[in-house]
Amino acid sequence: MIDRLVERIQELGAPICVGLDPRLDMIPECVKSDIYAAFGKTPAAAAKIFFAFNKEIIDNICSLVPAVKPQVAFYEQLGADGIRCYIDTVNYAKSKGLIVIGDVKRGDIAATAEAYSSGHLGRTDIEGKPFEIFGTDFITVNPYIGFDSINPFLADCAAYNRGLFVLVKTSNPNSCIQNIPAADGRPVYASVGDLVSKWGQDYIGQRGFSRIGAVVGATYPAEGVALRKAMPHTFFLAPGYGVQGAQAQDLRGLFTSNGEGVIINSSRGIISGAVKSGRDFGAAAAAAVLAMKKDLAENV
Amino acid sequence: MIDRLVERIQELGAPICVGLDPRLDMIPECVKSDIYAAFGKTPAAAAKIFFAFNKEIIDNICSLVPAVKPQVAFYEQLGADGIRCYIDTVNYAKSKGLIVIGDVKRGDIAATAEAYSSGHLGRTDIEGKPFEIFGTDFITVNPYIGFDSINPFLADCAAYNRGLFVLVKTSNPNSCIQNIPAADGRPVYASVGDLVSKWGQDYIGQRGFSRIGAVVGATYPAEGVALRKAMPHTFFLAPGYGVQGAQAQDLRGLFTSNGEGVIINSSRGIISGAVKSGRDFGAAAAAAVLAMKKDLAENV
Repeated sequence: MIDRLVERIQELGAPICVGLDPRLDMIPECVKSDIYAAFGKTPAAAAKIFFAFNKEIIDNICSLVPAVKPQVAFYEQLGADGIRCYIDTVNYAKSKGLIVIGDVKRGDIAATAEAYSSGHLGRTDIEGKPFEIFGTDFITVNPYIGFDSINPFLADCAAYNRGLFVLVKTSNPNSCIQNIPAADGRPVYASVGDLVSKWGQDYIGQRGFSRIGAVVGATYPAEGVALRKAMPHTFFLAPGYGVQGAQAQDLRGLFTSNGEGVIINSSRGIISGAVKSGRDFGAAAAAAVLAMKKDLAENV
Repeated sequence: MIDRLVERIQELGAPICVGLDPRLDMIPECVKSDIYAAFGKTPAAAAKIFFAFNKEIIDNICSLVPAVKPQVAFYEQLGADGIRCYIDTVNYAKSKGLIVIGDVKRGDIAATAEAYSSGHLGRTDIEGKPFEIFGTDFITVNPYIGFDSINPFLADCAAYNRGLFVLVKTSNPNSCIQNIPAADGRPVYASVGDLVSKWGQDYIGQRGFSRIGAVVGATYPAEGVALRKAMPHTFFLAPGYGVQGAQAQDLRGLFTSNGEGVIINSSRGIISGAVKSGRDFGAAAAAAVLAMKKDLAENV
């Protein structure tokens, strides 16, 4: 799947991932009114609204970008109905040819990580019969627990052609733990980068990148340059462009010398104009993607 | 809620949390057969089986221990049906007087962490109307992203009398990132302990402990002693007793000098005898709890 991601980015000329992080206050009334009328103002209705919204976004951007990234928290806060919507969104996006990165940031000890891996990347076994539950192509994972929390995903990555993005340097302002000075004179995230690079070295695909990627925030350009240098075979998922503050020129150092190795996520930057656009919100999202593509082409 | 947890441990003489981590291969046929007959061997049937199993366990242990800890991964791997079962389990445990610690280990940047907080600890807002979704009293959280990922939970903890357990030193063997040597000569987890202690200092309850607790694995006794000393007002959730290898005497250093400050989790140790016990599996779980209580009383 990492090879396919590299290829699709090249084919489309767009190292862009659209974050599907729906919020009710970002969704136009035209999507909401009929659903509220039928189901009341409930979590179940909100889940149906999220799916209708996502479907329209996906229809409009699926020929422009290689991947989407639903952030599971926005679905999970609606309970079981939200999880159903998350799964429906993943399946719909895949049916339109998109690669789906589940932004779940899971991480737990071995026996538990196996359950997460079964659900998100592999198959859940019910008395010997395998069921695909979430079906995401990649997920994000949190490495704080250590290799014990990463290792259980590797078999499913191989068996089902999946991949991981491990948090290394996140895009938020106060990433205090990542910045703890280590004894080797570098911050902790640099050591985490080394570990992620090492964990991925046996899984490098035909396009030169490992299926074990890293999350490297676009908001720290200097740190990104150092991580790119230290992790030549690690594909980066970079959040932070747009609303979080990173600009196109800040992304330059995340790319390899031949302009590969990273996919830039934008969530609110693509979908937050929806209310203003009303019924045309899908076209507005497509326009926002094209503007981002142009910005990256001209300024990275 | 941290005050109530301290009080209930004292009333029952049992610093014990029962982990509700259901697995199909641990559940007796008598629980499964009717449900499979009615619903087939499907994720939906598995979710119903998990709930029937949990209900019987809860009925048998609710007067013996203060708290249960469902591990969401085991439910999540069944998709929306599993999440419904998780919520039903939380609600049923609370109806029987138990404090519920949702073992979710979530962690994300601010806007996303707010969504997790709404769902797990607070209320999800649907057009101005608040809905309680998961209703857990505490959740576990992962601090790797930094204070930005913890802060969004604090308002809901105050508003709804909830609490957190932040991962500091986990119970697994290869917790490599936690052990990175820091510039101050200590491993990274010690700095994380200092941060968690600091984050919790404004939230210390009437019994002397903060509602921001820490996960400290029972499998590292020496490290536990150092963390207890460094974090006198932090309540510890300690996994690792029993199947993971920690023995009662390993737990001694996690308690304060007056024998408070920690709750010991056991999951497989309490529920894994179920298949062998057949229809009496609830009584077997209660017997396992009493044996653990005796072991802790005699050997800690």
